Amino acid sequence: MSVATLVDGVATTSLPLDDRGLAYGDGVFETVLVADGTPVWWERHLRRLQRGCAALEIPAPRIDLLQAEATQLAAGAAHALLKITITRGAAARGYAPPRDARARRILARHPAPAPDPRAHGGIMLRWCRMPLALQPRLAGIKHLNRLEQVLARSEWDDAGIAEGLMCDTQGRVVSATAANLFVVRDGRLATPSLQQCGVEGTCREWLLERAEVQVRELQPDDVLGADELFICSSVRGILPVARLDGRDWDVGPMTRRWQQALWDEVAALCPRMESGA
Amino acid sequence: MSVATLVDGVATTSLPLDDRGLAYGDGVFETVLVADGTPVWWERHLRRLQRGCAALEIPAPRIDLLQAEATQLAAGAAHALLKITITRGAAARGYAPPRDARARRILARHPAPAPDPRAHGGIMLRWCRMPLALQPRLAGIKHLNRLEQVLARSEWDDAGIAEGLMCDTQGRVVSATAANLFVVRDGRLATPSLQQCGVEGTCREWLLERAEVQVRELQPDDVLGADELFICSSVRGILPVARLDGRDWDVGPMTRRWQQALWDEVAALCPRMESGA
Repeated sequence: MSVATLVDGVATTSLPLDDRGLAYGDGVFETVLVADGTPVWWERHLRRLQRGCAALEIPAPRIDLLQAEATQLAAGAAHALLKITITRGAAARGYAPPRDARARRILARHPAPAPDPRAHGGIMLRWCRMPLALQPRLAGIKHLNRLEQVLARSEWDDAGIAEGLMCDTQGRVVSATAANLFVVRDGRLATPSLQQCGVEGTCREWLLERAEVQVRELQPDDVLGADELFICSSVRGILPVARLDGRDWDVGPMTRRWQQALWDEVAALCPRMESGA
Repeated sequence: MSVATLVDGVATTSLPLDDRGLAYGDGVFETVLVADGTPVWWERHLRRLQRGCAALEIPAPRIDLLQAEATQLAAGAAHALLKITITRGAAARGYAPPRDARARRILARHPAPAPDPRAHGGIMLRWCRMPLALQPRLAGIKHLNRLEQVLARSEWDDAGIAEGLMCDTQGRVVSATAANLFVVRDGRLATPSLQQCGVEGTCREWLLERAEVQVRELQPDDVLGADELFICSSVRGILPVARLDGRDWDVGPMTRRWQQALWDEVAALCPRMESGA
Protein backbone atom coordinates (compact mmCIF):
# COMPACT_ATOMS: atom_id res chain seq x y z
CA MET A 1 0.00 0.00 0.00
CA SER A 2 1.39 3.40 -0.97
CA VAL A 3 1.40 6.52 1.15
CA ALA A 4 -1.70 8.64 0.48
CA THR A 5 -1.83 12.23 1.67
CA LEU A 6 -4.28 15.09 2.11
CA VAL A 7 -3.51 18.69 3.06
CA ASP A 8 -6.63 20.58 4.11
CA GLY A 9 -8.63 17.97 2.25
CA VAL A 10 -6.74 18.23 -1.03
CA ALA A 11 -4.73 15.29 -2.33
CA THR A 12 -1.15 16.54 -2.58
CA THR A 13 2.32 15.38 -1.65
CA SER A 14 3.64 18.81 -0.75
CA LEU A 15 3.31 21.56 1.82
CA PRO A 16 3.61 25.33 1.35
CA LEU A 17 7.11 26.41 2.43
CA ASP A 18 5.78 29.08 4.77
CA ASP A 19 4.12 26.55 7.08
CA ARG A 20 4.96 27.08 10.74
CA GLY A 21 5.19 23.34 11.27
CA LEU A 22 8.38 23.40 9.23
CA ALA A 23 9.64 26.73 10.57
CA TYR A 24 9.30 26.05 14.30
CA GLY A 25 7.74 22.63 14.80
CA ASP A 26 4.64 24.68 15.57
CA GLY A 27 2.03 21.95 15.70
CA VAL A 28 0.97 18.56 17.03
CA PHE A 29 0.54 15.09 15.58
CA GLU A 30 -1.10 11.72 16.09
CA THR A 31 -0.32 8.31 14.67
CA VAL A 32 -3.52 6.29 14.52
CA LEU A 33 -3.80 2.57 13.86
CA VAL A 34 -6.29 1.70 11.12
CA ALA A 35 -7.90 -1.73 11.21
CA ASP A 36 -10.44 -2.93 8.65
CA GLY A 37 -10.92 0.58 7.30
CA THR A 38 -11.54 2.15 10.71
CA PRO A 39 -9.25 4.36 12.81
CA VAL A 40 -8.74 2.68 16.19
CA TRP A 41 -9.33 4.84 19.32
CA TRP A 42 -10.30 7.77 17.09
CA GLU A 43 -11.95 9.77 19.87
CA ARG A 44 -8.97 9.21 22.14
CA HIS A 45 -6.51 10.50 19.54
CA LEU A 46 -8.80 13.39 18.73
CA ARG A 47 -8.94 14.45 22.38
CA ARG A 48 -5.15 14.48 22.68
CA LEU A 49 -4.89 16.44 19.42
CA GLN A 50 -7.32 18.99 20.81
CA ARG A 51 -5.48 19.16 24.15
CA GLY A 52 -2.26 19.77 22.23
CA CYS A 53 -3.77 22.54 20.10
CA ALA A 54 -5.16 24.18 23.23
CA ALA A 55 -1.78 23.99 24.98
CA LEU A 56 -0.10 25.65 21.99
CA GLU A 57 -2.99 28.09 21.48
CA ILE A 58 -3.45 26.78 17.96
CA PRO A 59 -7.04 27.24 16.78
CA ALA A 60 -8.73 23.84 16.93
CA PRO A 61 -9.05 22.23 13.49
CA ARG A 62 -12.51 21.66 12.03
CA ILE A 63 -13.34 18.25 13.52
CA ASP A 64 -15.99 17.44 10.93
CA LEU A 65 -13.47 17.94 8.13
CA LEU A 66 -10.73 16.06 9.97
CA GLN A 67 -13.08 13.16 10.55
CA ALA A 68 -14.19 13.09 6.92
CA GLU A 69 -10.59 13.14 5.73
CA ALA A 70 -9.55 10.40 8.15
CA THR A 71 -12.50 8.30 7.03
CA GLN A 72 -11.56 8.85 3.40
CA LEU A 73 -7.96 7.70 3.90
CA ALA A 74 -8.84 4.81 6.18
CA ALA A 75 -11.50 3.41 3.84
CA GLY A 76 -10.44 0.09 2.40
CA ALA A 77 -7.21 -0.15 4.41
CA ALA A 78 -7.12 -3.50 6.20
CA HIS A 79 -4.14 -2.58 8.34
CA ALA A 80 -2.48 0.83 8.13
CA LEU A 81 -1.36 3.90 10.07
CA LEU A 82 -2.90 7.31 9.72
CA LYS A 83 -0.59 10.14 10.66
CA ILE A 84 -2.41 13.37 11.40
CA THR A 85 -0.45 16.59 11.76
CA ILE A 86 -2.02 19.89 12.74
CA THR A 87 0.15 22.98 12.31
CA ARG A 88 -0.48 26.63 12.99
CA GLY A 89 -0.54 27.01 9.20
CA ALA A 90 1.06 29.63 7.01
CA ALA A 91 2.57 32.81 8.33
CA ALA A 92 5.14 35.49 7.69
CA ARG A 93 8.62 35.01 9.17
CA GLY A 94 9.01 35.41 12.92
CA TYR A 95 8.06 33.63 16.13
CA ALA A 96 4.95 35.72 16.84
CA PRO A 97 1.94 33.51 16.10
CA PRO A 98 -0.48 35.36 13.83
CA ARG A 99 -3.74 36.22 15.61
CA ASP A 100 -5.70 35.06 12.57
CA ALA A 101 -3.85 31.72 12.28
CA ARG A 102 -5.77 28.90 10.61
CA ALA A 103 -4.83 25.38 11.64
CA ARG A 104 -3.64 23.25 8.74
CA ARG A 105 -4.66 19.58 8.53
CA ILE A 106 -2.08 17.18 7.11
CA LEU A 107 -3.10 13.54 6.86
CA ALA A 108 -0.97 10.69 5.56
CA ARG A 109 -1.81 7.00 5.36
CA HIS A 110 1.25 4.80 5.84
CA PRO A 111 1.75 1.05 5.82
CA ALA A 112 1.49 -0.32 9.37
CA PRO A 113 4.10 -2.66 10.75
CA ALA A 114 2.75 -6.13 11.42
CA PRO A 115 1.99 -6.75 15.11
CA ASP A 116 5.32 -7.51 16.77
CA PRO A 117 5.70 -11.27 17.44
CA ARG A 118 7.95 -10.29 20.36
CA ALA A 119 4.72 -9.35 22.12
CA HIS A 120 4.73 -13.00 23.19
CA GLY A 121 8.27 -13.56 24.42
CA GLY A 122 9.30 -10.03 25.20
CA ILE A 123 11.54 -7.36 23.71
CA MET A 124 15.03 -6.11 24.44
CA LEU A 125 15.43 -2.49 25.62
CA ARG A 126 18.43 -0.22 26.11
CA TRP A 127 19.05 2.98 28.05
CA CYS A 128 19.39 6.15 25.96
CA ARG A 129 22.06 8.72 26.82
CA MET A 130 19.99 11.58 25.37
CA PRO A 131 17.96 13.10 28.22
CA LEU A 132 14.53 14.70 28.15
CA ALA A 133 14.44 18.33 29.27
CA LEU A 134 11.97 19.42 31.95
CA GLN A 135 9.36 21.65 30.33
CA PRO A 136 5.98 21.55 32.07
CA ARG A 137 4.36 23.81 29.46
CA LEU A 138 4.97 21.25 26.71
CA ALA A 139 4.77 18.04 28.74
CA GLY A 140 2.13 15.44 27.90
CA ILE A 141 1.14 16.70 24.47
CA LYS A 142 2.42 15.26 21.19
CA HIS A 143 3.92 18.38 19.63
CA LEU A 144 6.27 18.55 16.66
CA ASN A 145 9.44 19.48 18.62
CA ARG A 146 10.91 15.99 18.66
CA LEU A 147 14.67 16.41 18.37
CA GLU A 148 15.16 14.73 21.73
CA GLN A 149 13.45 11.57 20.50
CA VAL A 150 15.29 11.72 17.17
CA LEU A 151 18.68 11.93 18.87
CA ALA A 152 17.76 9.24 21.38
CA ARG A 153 16.58 6.92 18.61
CA SER A 154 19.79 7.54 16.67
CA GLU A 155 21.81 5.89 19.45
CA TRP A 156 21.29 2.35 18.16
CA ASP A 157 20.96 0.51 14.87
CA ASP A 158 20.63 -3.04 16.18
CA ALA A 159 17.23 -4.33 15.00
CA GLY A 160 17.25 -6.68 17.98
CA ILE A 161 16.70 -3.71 20.30
CA ALA A 162 13.04 -2.75 20.12
CA GLU A 163 13.19 0.50 22.08
CA GLY A 164 15.32 2.79 24.23
CA LEU A 165 14.37 4.16 27.63
CA MET A 166 14.85 7.88 28.21
CA CYS A 167 15.47 9.60 31.53
CA ASP A 168 14.91 13.27 32.22
CA THR A 169 17.80 15.66 32.88
CA GLN A 170 17.50 14.78 36.57
CA GLY A 171 17.90 11.06 35.93
CA ARG A 172 14.30 9.95 36.45
CA VAL A 173 12.94 7.41 33.98
CA VAL A 174 10.26 8.88 31.69
CA SER A 175 9.40 6.62 28.76
CA ALA A 176 10.69 4.86 25.67
CA THR A 177 11.37 7.05 22.62
CA ALA A 178 7.94 6.24 21.15
CA ALA A 179 6.10 4.31 23.87
CA ASN A 180 5.19 4.65 27.52
CA LEU A 181 6.62 2.49 30.29
CA PHE A 182 4.90 0.50 33.04
CA VAL A 183 6.53 -1.48 35.82
CA VAL A 184 5.05 -4.07 38.17
CA ARG A 185 6.33 -4.53 41.72
CA ASP A 186 4.63 -6.73 44.30
CA GLY A 187 1.58 -6.99 42.07
CA ARG A 188 1.17 -3.23 41.68
CA LEU A 189 1.42 -1.27 38.44
CA ALA A 190 3.31 2.01 38.24
CA THR A 191 4.16 4.40 35.41
CA PRO A 192 6.23 7.60 35.37
CA SER A 193 4.58 10.93 35.98
CA LEU A 194 4.60 13.06 32.81
CA GLN A 195 4.12 16.46 34.44
CA GLN A 196 7.59 17.65 33.43
CA CYS A 197 8.22 15.92 30.10
CA GLY A 198 7.14 12.99 27.96
CA VAL A 199 4.03 12.24 25.92
CA GLU A 200 0.77 10.99 27.41
CA GLY A 201 0.25 8.00 25.14
CA THR A 202 -3.21 6.83 24.19
CA CYS A 203 -2.49 3.24 25.25
CA ARG A 204 -1.20 4.57 28.60
CA GLU A 205 -4.45 6.50 28.94
CA TRP A 206 -6.45 3.37 28.13
CA LEU A 207 -4.59 1.52 30.89
CA LEU A 208 -4.98 4.32 33.44
CA GLU A 209 -8.74 4.19 32.90
CA ARG A 210 -8.88 0.45 33.62
CA ALA A 211 -6.06 -0.55 35.93
CA GLU A 212 -5.01 0.62 39.35
CA VAL A 213 -1.76 2.40 38.54
CA GLN A 214 0.55 4.50 40.66
CA VAL A 215 1.64 7.52 38.61
CA ARG A 216 4.89 8.54 40.23
CA GLU A 217 8.58 9.28 39.88
CA LEU A 218 10.58 6.22 38.82
CA GLN A 219 14.32 5.87 39.20
CA PRO A 220 16.39 3.51 37.02
CA ASP A 221 16.70 1.18 40.01
CA ASP A 222 12.91 1.00 40.27
CA VAL A 223 12.88 -0.19 36.68
CA LEU A 224 15.69 -2.70 37.05
CA GLY A 225 14.21 -3.98 40.31
CA ALA A 226 10.71 -4.46 38.88
CA ASP A 227 9.06 -7.88 38.80
CA GLU A 228 7.59 -7.14 35.37
CA LEU A 229 8.17 -4.42 32.83
CA PHE A 230 6.33 -3.45 29.66
CA ILE A 231 6.06 -0.62 27.17
CA CYS A 232 2.91 0.34 25.32
CA SER A 233 1.70 2.44 22.43
CA SER A 234 -1.42 2.61 20.33
CA VAL A 235 0.56 1.39 17.32
CA ARG A 236 2.48 -1.47 18.94
CA GLY A 237 0.21 -2.39 21.81
CA ILE A 238 1.67 -3.81 25.02
CA LEU A 239 5.16 -5.27 24.62
CA PRO A 240 6.67 -7.11 27.60
CA VAL A 241 10.32 -6.38 28.31
CA ALA A 242 12.51 -9.49 28.39
CA ARG A 243 15.92 -7.85 28.73
CA LEU A 244 17.45 -4.54 29.81
CA ASP A 245 20.90 -3.67 31.07
CA GLY A 246 21.93 -7.29 31.70
CA ARG A 247 18.71 -8.18 33.52
CA ASP A 248 16.27 -10.74 32.16
CA TRP A 249 12.58 -11.00 32.82
CA ASP A 250 9.97 -13.63 32.09
CA VAL A 251 6.66 -12.28 30.91
CA GLY A 252 4.64 -11.88 34.11
CA PRO A 253 0.95 -12.35 34.90
CA MET A 254 0.08 -8.64 35.17
CA THR A 255 1.59 -7.92 31.75
CA ARG A 256 -0.26 -10.89 30.22
CA ARG A 257 -3.53 -9.84 31.82
CA TRP A 258 -3.49 -6.34 30.33
CA GLN A 259 -2.07 -7.48 27.04
CA GLN A 260 -4.99 -9.90 26.71
CA ALA A 261 -7.47 -7.19 27.69
CA LEU A 262 -5.99 -4.93 25.03
CA TRP A 263 -6.11 -7.65 22.36
CA ASP A 264 -9.72 -8.35 23.30
CA GLU A 265 -10.52 -4.71 22.55
CA VAL A 266 -8.14 -4.13 19.63
CA ALA A 267 -7.62 -7.42 17.82
CA ALA A 268 -5.38 -5.72 15.24
CA LEU A 269 -2.66 -5.38 17.89
CA CYS A 270 -2.47 -9.12 18.55
CA PRO A 271 0.32 -10.90 16.69
CA ARG A 272 -0.26 -14.43 15.49
CA MET A 273 1.69 -16.89 17.61
CA GLU A 274 4.51 -18.21 15.47
CA SER A 275 6.15 -21.56 15.95
CA GLY A 276 8.95 -21.24 18.45
CA ALA A 277 7.85 -17.77 19.59
CA MET B 1 9.91 42.71 -2.78
CA SER B 2 8.25 39.32 -2.84
CA VAL B 3 9.41 36.16 -1.11
CA ALA B 4 11.62 34.07 -3.41
CA THR B 5 12.37 30.46 -2.52
CA LEU B 6 14.65 27.62 -3.54
CA VAL B 7 14.54 24.00 -2.35
CA ASP B 8 17.71 22.10 -3.23
CA GLY B 9 18.35 24.73 -5.86
CA VAL B 10 14.96 24.50 -7.53
CA ALA B 11 12.58 27.46 -7.49
CA THR B 12 9.46 26.19 -5.73
CA THR B 13 7.07 27.33 -3.04
CA SER B 14 6.45 23.88 -1.58
CA LEU B 15 8.15 21.13 0.35
CA PRO B 16 7.63 17.35 0.09
CA LEU B 17 5.32 16.26 2.91
CA ASP B 18 7.72 13.57 4.11
CA ASP B 19 10.39 16.09 5.14
CA ARG B 20 11.70 15.51 8.65
CA GLY B 21 11.82 19.26 9.25
CA LEU B 22 8.02 19.19 9.32
CA ALA B 23 7.70 15.85 11.09
CA TYR B 24 10.04 16.52 14.02
CA GLY B 25 11.65 19.94 13.61
CA ASP B 26 14.64 17.88 12.53
CA GLY B 27 16.91 20.60 11.21
CA VAL B 28 18.53 23.99 11.76
CA PHE B 29 18.09 27.48 10.35
CA GLU B 30 19.75 30.86 9.89
CA THR B 31 18.32 34.27 9.17
CA VAL B 32 20.91 36.29 7.28
CA LEU B 33 20.79 40.02 6.62
CA VAL B 34 21.36 40.92 2.98
CA ALA B 35 22.76 44.37 2.20
CA ASP B 36 23.45 45.58 -1.32
CA GLY B 37 23.10 42.10 -2.76
CA THR B 38 25.49 40.49 -0.28
CA PRO B 39 24.76 38.25 2.73
CA VAL B 40 26.20 39.90 5.84
CA TRP B 41 28.41 37.71 8.08
CA TRP B 42 27.98 34.81 5.68
CA GLU B 43 30.89 32.79 7.07
CA ARG B 44 29.67 33.33 10.60
CA HIS B 45 26.17 32.06 9.78
CA LEU B 46 27.62 29.17 7.83
CA ARG B 47 29.76 28.09 10.78
CA ARG B 48 26.76 28.03 13.12
CA LEU B 49 24.73 26.11 10.53
CA GLN B 50 27.52 23.55 10.32
CA ARG B 51 27.84 23.34 14.12
CA GLY B 52 24.09 22.75 14.29
CA CYS B 53 24.16 20.01 11.66
CA ALA B 54 27.06 18.34 13.49
CA ALA B 55 25.20 18.51 16.82
CA LEU B 56 22.15 16.87 15.24
CA GLU B 57 24.26 14.44 13.21
CA ILE B 58 22.69 15.77 10.02
CA PRO B 59 25.03 15.32 7.04
CA ALA B 60 26.54 18.72 6.26
CA PRO B 61 24.90 20.36 3.24
CA ARG B 62 26.98 20.96 0.10
CA ILE B 63 28.50 24.36 0.92
CA ASP B 64 29.28 25.21 -2.70
CA LEU B 65 25.64 24.73 -3.64
CA LEU B 66 24.38 26.58 -0.56
CA GLN B 67 26.67 29.48 -1.36
CA ALA B 68 25.57 29.60 -4.99
CA GLU B 69 21.91 29.54 -3.99
CA ALA B 70 22.39 32.27 -1.38
CA THR B 71 24.25 34.39 -3.94
CA GLN B 72 21.44 33.87 -6.43
CA LEU B 73 18.71 34.98 -4.02
CA ALA B 74 20.72 37.87 -2.58
CA ALA B 75 21.64 39.28 -5.98
CA GLY B 76 19.99 42.63 -6.58
CA ALA B 77 18.41 42.83 -3.09
CA ALA B 78 19.34 46.17 -1.54
CA HIS B 79 18.03 45.22 1.90
CA ALA B 80 16.53 41.81 2.61
CA LEU B 81 16.65 38.73 4.80
CA LEU B 82 17.73 35.33 3.63
CA LYS B 83 16.32 32.47 5.66
CA ILE B 84 18.24 29.24 5.26
CA THR B 85 16.79 26.01 6.61
CA ILE B 86 18.64 22.72 6.51
CA THR B 87 16.59 19.63 7.33
CA ARG B 88 17.48 15.94 7.51
CA GLY B 89 15.44 15.62 4.32
CA ALA B 90 12.87 13.02 3.36
CA ALA B 91 12.35 9.82 5.27
CA ALA B 92 9.84 7.14 6.12
CA ARG B 93 7.75 7.59 9.29
CA GLY B 94 9.50 7.15 12.64
CA TYR B 95 12.08 8.90 14.81
CA ALA B 96 15.05 6.83 13.65
CA PRO B 97 17.16 9.05 11.39
CA PRO B 98 17.91 7.22 8.15
CA ARG B 99 21.61 6.36 7.83
CA ASP B 100 21.56 7.54 4.22
CA ALA B 101 19.87 10.88 5.02
CA ARG B 102 20.56 13.72 2.59
CA ALA B 103 20.35 17.24 4.00
CA ARG B 104 17.76 19.39 2.25
CA ARG B 105 18.51 23.07 1.56
CA ILE B 106 15.58 25.47 1.82
CA LEU B 107 16.31 29.13 1.07
CA ALA B 108 13.82 31.97 1.20
CA ARG B 109 14.40 35.66 0.60
CA HIS B 110 12.14 37.85 2.71
CA PRO B 111 11.71 41.61 3.02
CA ALA B 112 13.91 42.93 5.84
CA PRO B 113 12.50 45.25 8.47
CA ALA B 114 14.01 48.73 8.29
CA PRO B 115 16.68 49.31 10.96
CA ASP B 116 14.82 50.04 14.18
CA PRO B 117 14.88 53.79 14.98
CA ARG B 118 14.62 52.79 18.66
CA ALA B 119 18.29 51.84 18.32
CA HIS B 120 18.88 55.48 19.26
CA GLY B 121 16.61 56.03 22.23
CA GLY B 122 16.18 52.46 23.43
CA ILE B 123 13.48 49.81 23.41
CA MET B 124 10.97 48.55 25.93
CA LEU B 125 11.27 44.92 27.11
CA ARG B 126 9.03 42.64 29.16
CA TRP B 127 9.58 39.41 31.08
CA CYS B 128 8.13 36.28 29.50
CA ARG B 129 6.38 33.70 31.67
CA MET B 130 7.30 30.87 29.28
CA PRO B 131 10.56 29.32 30.54
CA LEU B 132 13.39 27.73 28.57
CA ALA B 133 14.06 24.09 29.41
CA LEU B 134 17.60 22.97 30.27
CA GLN B 135 18.87 20.77 27.45
CA PRO B 136 22.66 20.86 27.04
CA ARG B 137 22.56 18.62 23.95
CA LEU B 138 20.53 21.21 22.01
CA ALA B 139 21.84 24.41 23.61
CA GLY B 140 23.59 27.02 21.49
CA ILE B 141 22.50 25.79 18.06
CA LYS B 142 19.63 27.25 16.06
CA HIS B 143 17.51 24.15 15.57
CA LEU B 144 13.91 24.01 14.39
CA ASN B 145 12.35 23.05 17.75
CA ARG B 146 11.14 26.52 18.63
CA LEU B 147 7.86 26.10 20.47
CA GLU B 148 9.32 27.75 23.56
CA GLN B 149 10.06 30.92 21.61
CA VAL B 150 6.69 30.80 19.86
CA LEU B 151 4.80 30.56 23.14
CA ALA B 152 6.96 33.25 24.76
CA ARG B 153 6.43 35.59 21.82
CA SER B 154 2.67 34.97 21.97
CA GLU B 155 2.52 36.58 25.41
CA TRP B 156 2.25 40.13 24.09
CA ASP B 157 0.69 42.02 21.18
CA ASP B 158 1.72 45.55 22.11
CA ALA B 159 3.92 46.86 19.27
CA GLY B 160 5.55 49.17 21.78
CA ILE B 161 7.27 46.19 23.38
CA ALA B 162 10.22 45.23 21.21
CA GLU B 163 11.18 41.98 22.89
CA GLY B 164 10.59 39.67 25.83
CA LEU B 165 13.24 38.27 28.14
CA MET B 166 13.16 34.55 28.85
CA CYS B 167 14.48 32.78 31.93
CA ASP B 168 15.32 29.11 32.18
CA THR B 169 13.27 26.72 34.29
CA GLN B 170 15.56 27.55 37.22
CA GLY B 171 14.89 31.28 36.95
CA ARG B 172 18.18 32.39 35.39
CA VAL B 173 17.94 34.96 32.60
CA VAL B 174 18.91 33.52 29.21
CA SER B 175 18.00 35.81 26.30
CA ALA B 176 15.23 37.60 24.47
CA THR B 177 12.98 35.45 22.27
CA ALA B 178 15.02 36.27 19.15
CA ALA B 179 18.07 38.18 20.41
CA ASN B 180 20.85 37.79 22.96
CA LEU B 181 21.19 39.92 26.08
CA PHE B 182 24.14 41.89 27.43
CA VAL B 183 24.33 43.84 30.68
CA VAL B 184 26.86 46.41 31.84
CA ARG B 185 27.76 46.81 35.50
CA ASP B 186 30.61 49.01 36.72
CA GLY B 187 31.91 49.31 33.19
CA ARG B 188 32.04 45.54 32.61
CA LEU B 189 30.03 43.63 30.03
CA ALA B 190 28.34 40.35 30.89
CA THR B 191 26.07 37.98 28.97
CA PRO B 192 24.30 34.77 30.04
CA SER B 193 26.01 31.44 29.60
CA LEU B 194 24.24 29.34 26.96
CA GLN B 195 25.53 25.93 28.01
CA GLN B 196 22.08 24.75 29.10
CA CYS B 197 19.72 26.50 26.69
CA GLY B 198 19.44 29.46 24.33
CA VAL B 199 20.91 30.23 20.92
CA GLU B 200 24.46 31.47 20.37
CA GLY B 201 23.64 34.48 18.21
CA THR B 202 26.01 35.67 15.53
CA CYS B 203 26.00 39.25 16.84
CA ARG B 204 26.77 37.88 20.32
CA GLU B 205 29.66 35.95 18.81
CA TRP B 206 30.89 39.11 17.05
CA LEU B 207 30.87 40.91 20.39
CA LEU B 208 32.59 38.10 22.28
CA GLU B 209 35.43 38.25 19.75
CA ARG B 210 35.95 41.97 20.31
CA ALA B 211 34.88 42.96 23.79
CA GLU B 212 35.89 41.74 27.22
CA VAL B 213 32.73 39.95 28.31
CA GLN B 214 31.97 37.83 31.34
CA VAL B 215 29.92 34.83 30.22
CA ARG B 216 28.11 33.77 33.36
CA GLU B 217 24.83 33.05 35.10
CA LEU B 218 22.59 36.11 35.34
CA GLN B 219 19.69 36.44 37.73
CA PRO B 220 16.76 38.80 37.07
CA ASP B 221 18.16 41.10 39.77
CA ASP B 222 21.46 41.30 37.87
CA VAL B 223 19.50 42.52 34.87
CA LEU B 224 17.36 45.02 36.76
CA GLY B 225 20.41 46.26 38.67
CA ALA B 226 22.54 46.77 35.56
CA ASP B 227 23.87 50.20 34.59
CA GLU B 228 23.20 49.50 30.92
CA LEU B 229 21.30 46.80 29.10
CA PHE B 230 21.09 45.86 25.44
CA ILE B 231 19.93 43.05 23.19
CA CYS B 232 21.54 42.13 19.91
CA SER B 233 20.95 40.07 16.80
CA SER B 234 22.39 39.93 13.32
CA VAL B 235 19.07 41.16 11.91
CA ARG B 236 18.36 44.00 14.36
CA GLY B 237 21.86 44.89 15.50
CA ILE B 238 22.41 46.29 18.99
CA LEU B 239 19.28 47.72 20.61
CA PRO B 240 19.67 49.54 23.94
CA VAL B 241 17.03 48.79 26.55
CA ALA B 242 15.26 51.88 27.86
CA ARG B 243 12.60 50.24 29.99
CA LEU B 244 11.90 46.92 31.71
CA ASP B 245 9.72 46.04 34.67
CA GLY B 246 9.23 49.66 35.79
CA ARG B 247 12.92 50.52 35.54
CA ASP B 248 14.22 53.11 33.09
CA TRP B 249 17.67 53.37 31.58
CA ASP B 250 19.44 56.01 29.57
CA VAL B 251 21.55 54.68 26.74
CA GLY B 252 25.00 54.29 28.29
CA PRO B 253 28.52 54.72 26.92
CA MET B 254 29.37 51.03 26.62
CA THR B 255 26.23 50.34 24.61
CA ARG B 256 26.92 53.33 22.32
CA ARG B 257 30.52 52.27 21.83
CA TRP B 258 29.67 48.78 20.60
CA GLN B 259 26.66 49.96 18.68
CA GLN B 260 28.91 52.38 16.79
CA ALA B 261 31.52 49.67 16.21
CA LEU B 262 28.81 47.43 14.79
CA TRP B 263 27.43 50.16 12.52
CA ASP B 264 30.96 50.88 11.31
CA GLU B 265 31.21 47.25 10.20
CA VAL B 266 27.60 46.68 9.09
CA ALA B 267 26.17 49.98 7.91
CA ALA B 268 22.88 48.31 6.98
CA LEU B 269 22.07 47.93 10.70
CA CYS B 270 22.29 51.67 11.38
CA PRO B 271 18.94 53.46 11.40
CA ARG B 272 18.76 57.01 10.10
CA MET B 273 18.29 59.43 12.97
CA GLU B 274 14.73 60.72 12.78
CA SER B 275 13.61 64.04 14.16
CA GLY B 276 12.61 63.62 17.74
CA ALA B 277 14.18 60.17 18.05
